Amino acid sequence: MDFSSKLLENAVYEISQLPGIGKRTALRLVLHLLKQPSGQSERLSNALVTLRNNVKFCTSCHNISDVELCEICASPKRDESIVCVVEDIRDVMAIENTGQFKGLYHVLGGKISPMEGVGPQDLKIESLIGKAKQGKIKELIFALSSTMEGDTTNFYIYKQLEGLAISTSTIARGIAVGDELEYADEVTLGRSIMNRIPFEGSLKAN
Amino acid sequence: MDFSSKLLENAVYEISQLPGIGKRTALRLVLHLLKQPSGQSERLSNALVTLRNNVKFCTSCHNISDVELCEICASPKRDESIVCVVEDIRDVMAIENTGQFKGLYHVLGGKISPMEGVGPQDLKIESLIGKAKQGKIKELIFALSSTMEGDTTNFYIYKQLEGLAISTSTIARGIAVGDELEYADEVTLGRSIMNRIPFEGSLKAN
Repeated sequence: MDFSSKLLENAVYEISQLPGIGKRTALRLVLHLLKQPSGQSERLSNALVTLRNNVKFCTSCHNISDVELCEICASPKRDESIVCVVEDIRDVMAIENTGQFKGLYHVLGGKISPMEGVGPQDLKIESLIGKAKQGKIKELIFALSSTMEGDTTNFYIYKQLEGLAISTSTIARGIAVGDELEYADEVTLGRSIMNRIPFEGSLKAN
Repeated sequence: MDFSSKLLENAVYEISQLPGIGKRTALRLVLHLLKQPSGQSERLSNALVTLRNNVKFCTSCHNISDVELCEICASPKRDESIVCVVEDIRDVMAIENTGQFKGLYHVLGGKISPMEGVGPQDLKIESLIGKAKQGKIKELIFALSSTMEGDTTNFYIYKQLEGLAISTSTIARGIAVGDELEYADEVTLGRSIMNRIPFEGSLKAN
């Protein structure tokens, strides 16, 4: 693309560095901002820089937080003996939205992925093992995505926990509530049959 | 969405104000920026604010430009007697990419749209008529999109030109080069038959 202005070209280039945003979309966004009062561009810029420079992570669960101990970790209502291991803050938000989990979280910050150069030392695994060794955790729930990387990470943590009296579980995989069997993929359907639950249990869950 | 951090919530809110970006996408973009070195957020913020506060428009064609008279308007190689009327800078870039047009542009900055509260006074129409009255323009090419708003804008400008010795044209609408007739919409196919051109002319165009 040939731009008639270096300032414009620069702004488009920087926006197009974001994932999933190409040059055309970036140009559309920049032209939109130019039509708005300059306050909007300033608020956007300030919000991004302020977050980037002042972001804090909870010292216990490593979730993004404005204070040292996040609201969930600090709450006396939460059961600190059950810890749910997730990849990032979006998973915490998704599980919190269900209102079904009253334990604490541990945010790894990613998954082990040799392809992308992410090893165990790049994730918050050491502090999880540390917490586990303190003896407060009775159950760990693995809630990583069921990909090769997720399974590898689960297994790595599982091996580190050997010898500790901690039970581990993974969230159930199966046909989504309301979905039709005929459109489900074979792997999911297969798992949901293998991991069937007693009918009385399914009644209780509703 | 319940956020664990006000800073994060604020950044997500500001990004989600951009057109076509919802809260989920905004969160994804913000989390991406948090994983990058802080320099990237700063460069992005600086680029946006610098552009917004220092953007200049060519005094002649109103295209975005870093100098008073843009490169195209200042070029001695361009034919100033032919002016192509377009909506915004993206249209200028698209036409320039073809390499087929050697005249000048006039960027209106939008289309007349009563639904969106855009009237003729919100667009750069007056300066176009002013240029036309100076007698340098021999032909005006309307290259606005062929929507109700585009047609209205074309007609409004056309009426303002009454009494001036300026010929007007619109860009040709028809089947795209390489497209199959059977998949073309009826309006386009109808127009391309009505506005057929002599076969010798079509040979020359290639």
